Amino acid sequence: MFEKVLIANRGDVALRIHRACREMGIRTVAVHSTADADAMHVRLADESVCIGPPASKDSYLNIPAILSAATVTGADAIHPGVGFLSENADFAEIVEAHGFVFIGPSPQHIRDMGDKIIAKRTVKALGIPCVPGSDGPVESVEAARANAEEIGYPVLIKATAGGGGRGMKIAHNPDEVAEAYTMARREAGAAFGNDEVYMERYLAKPRHIEVQIVGDGKGHVVHLGERDCSLQRRHQKVLEEAPSPALNAVARAKIGEIAASACAKMNYRSLGTLEFLYENGEFFFIEMNTRLQVEHPITEMITGIDLVREQIQIASGAPLSFKQEDIALNGHSIECRINAENARTFLPSPGKVTDYHAPGGLGVRVDSALYAGYQIPPYYDSLVAKLIVHGSNRNECLLRLRRALEEIVIANVETTVPLHLDLSKAPDFINGEYDIHWLEKVFLAD
Amino acid sequence: MFEKVLIANRGDVALRIHRACREMGIRTVAVHSTADADAMHVRLADESVCIGPPASKDSYLNIPAILSAATVTGADAIHPGVGFLSENADFAEIVEAHGFVFIGPSPQHIRDMGDKIIAKRTVKALGIPCVPGSDGPVESVEAARANAEEIGYPVLIKATAGGGGRGMKIAHNPDEVAEAYTMARREAGAAFGNDEVYMERYLAKPRHIEVQIVGDGKGHVVHLGERDCSLQRRHQKVLEEAPSPALNAVARAKIGEIAASACAKMNYRSLGTLEFLYENGEFFFIEMNTRLQVEHPITEMITGIDLVREQIQIASGAPLSFKQEDIALNGHSIECRINAENARTFLPSPGKVTDYHAPGGLGVRVDSALYAGYQIPPYYDSLVAKLIVHGSNRNECLLRLRRALEEIVIANVETTVPLHLDLSKAPDFINGEYDIHWLEKVFLAD
Repeated sequence: MFEKVLIANRGDVALRIHRACREMGIRTVAVHSTADADAMHVRLADESVCIGPPASKDSYLNIPAILSAATVTGADAIHPGVGFLSENADFAEIVEAHGFVFIGPSPQHIRDMGDKIIAKRTVKALGIPCVPGSDGPVESVEAARANAEEIGYPVLIKATAGGGGRGMKIAHNPDEVAEAYTMARREAGAAFGNDEVYMERYLAKPRHIEVQIVGDGKGHVVHLGERDCSLQRRHQKVLEEAPSPALNAVARAKIGEIAASACAKMNYRSLGTLEFLYENGEFFFIEMNTRLQVEHPITEMITGIDLVREQIQIASGAPLSFKQEDIALNGHSIECRINAENARTFLPSPGKVTDYHAPGGLGVRVDSALYAGYQIPPYYDSLVAKLIVHGSNRNECLLRLRRALEEIVIANVETTVPLHLDLSKAPDFINGEYDIHWLEKVFLAD
Repeated sequence: MFEKVLIANRGDVALRIHRACREMGIRTVAVHSTADADAMHVRLADESVCIGPPASKDSYLNIPAILSAATVTGADAIHPGVGFLSENADFAEIVEAHGFVFIGPSPQHIRDMGDKIIAKRTVKALGIPCVPGSDGPVESVEAARANAEEIGYPVLIKATAGGGGRGMKIAHNPDEVAEAYTMARREAGAAFGNDEVYMERYLAKPRHIEVQIVGDGKGHVVHLGERDCSLQRRHQKVLEEAPSPALNAVARAKIGEIAASACAKMNYRSLGTLEFLYENGEFFFIEMNTRLQVEHPITEMITGIDLVREQIQIASGAPLSFKQEDIALNGHSIECRINAENARTFLPSPGKVTDYHAPGGLGVRVDSALYAGYQIPPYYDSLVAKLIVHGSNRNECLLRLRRALEEIVIANVETTVPLHLDLSKAPDFINGEYDIHWLEKVFLAD
């Protein structure tokens, strides 16, 4: 096992990894920007190294500075966390080339799955159901029309390099194709410096359901149930739950087996998530995330498995610590992403947290790097706390969520706690009747 | 189900009950002394009533004031919590006589089990193993010597009305009986106003192992595994764990079945705990607690059952929500009682908590009514927080405990956190090799 791990991240994610290391007897090295000198991940780590000024590109994305910190502190391995360099195949390669272990998948898997077209081709060939779509980039309006006829309307025209909804247009009929195609290319070019687009069937009211898998890199892969992440705003997840209220045990087992089997054929190593759209009983692959995810705790709560510990063990060469038949899903879990933002305008609200009180008691978990007196810097993601609750069933979980939200105190900055409280009382949500558009088009539109 | 419950307690216990009520959609009434006007249980409750000045006898033990608060607020039921009036049979009777539901066992069971001699006779007749001892009070030195011959040395002479180690003396041979007997009576008379004593075999190095049961009052009783509470100082529990490292599955099932069967024959209602000494594979009944216990969370962590919710449901007339075959013990849990005391001298350390930070993350639960700025009053028990951790096995649980203890911040008052940190690193504890004397005679004596 590693003696020392460098955590190339910040905030609650860095803290999450630090905690797993501590519980495994591994020493930790925190890295931080000048804005994060007083951050909790720095305070708790065994050692810390400042890697640059506040801007992410100069610090948390500064590969030479991170490698230098690893060298100076004598770390054995580097955990990239979530975001930042966690899906940067070049970083993974450079880490390995410098003789450190990269705690994650092979660089090739990160690279392949990072390219949406290659990812789709790869998983389709391995038996994963995909949205009917163009076979690769679509080069002209005429080609777009031909593709649309084959796929069936409505169709979506999407940037190959895209994400976050930019470079994405819908055409409901042949007349709309030309404008949608032209607009999508223009936006893609402006946003990503690459105007390549592809096409696929547009699903009207799908859910976002993702399957957590873990592999040892030697063909053994276990699936750990799904997460329903349909509650999104601007393609950002707001609240996640596991299991999905939309799936029954048969559908769950089936998609889990398909996902695990495909990843086993790839010899996938480490944690991975296959994201699907789910509509009318059918799954359609969207993308695979080759990293730990923000919403991993809800899977931990219902499986009892420490995903970060498992990830570190696998990186050290250990086999999986469980088999598929050991996995039992127990109860229900919900995670609220608490952002330092106005709960109506969603404008960021950085500043000094003058008082902080985490809710406690049975079935309540808080993953947060907040503390009283902490200055939330304006430079990074606004996620400041994850509130995770577990109950023996979904109703118990919902009631526990509500009472935990009533207890939390994050003073002097605005947060999305009021949004989550309202959400926890919304009948559609309580009934599990929502799709990926519901939050924006129904709940927030009211 | 009740609409409104009055919680006749304070601190983390009151908060625990409030949380269960909130999650059941029941409104809560807090009662408080003038010293507790700003306490968290008061802040979170739907309504609150001041029931008297700081001294417990004038507030939390003030039965007329509590009943008046229940009447004024229109509560349906009263939860007595832990300590204070929770094992006062008269209180339970008066509550019922005033038309409120008492959330606990029948007054008769509280009364019977509150008398150690009656309790022992009762459970012995129902098949519970007891320490060999005198059949009732021992009236003279001569009778004490005769009893000792029958029981076998060493013998313990104990106050009938006793508790907390007062009025308790050991005699290792006939020569020591006279002095031990006389001293025990004198201490008992001074401490409890009742100098009656009884005798039993003295066990040299037993563990304290207790079995949690829950009954519906109609003959259905389920056992929920045991808790090992051997780590004690001055007969006060310091740290508890479940399951006990000293028991195997066969011994666990056997004592659980014996306990449940005896309580079923009694038609026991609500939560109850049968406390045993355990030595050389044998259990000896000490006493039964007819209430929720401070250490109940570790049972919740390994069974997934919300004991307070269950207790409230049963009080409302509902059947048990599980059968014996539904109970599976999962992983390991440890609770640290964090007291506002100097960790070496154990002198209380009341005062203002200028900063409070609860540890978080996977497998960590905190039950505490602390908050930053809270003034710990000097009038009550010094327990200010329970840190409860859960892991998939004992080793994982121990490592998690240690890292959680490293994260907790309770500033400006002294606490027993350093004691628990030292304890978490003590080889005997790590190896599970301890008895009820180890903490005082070995660990603290070093």
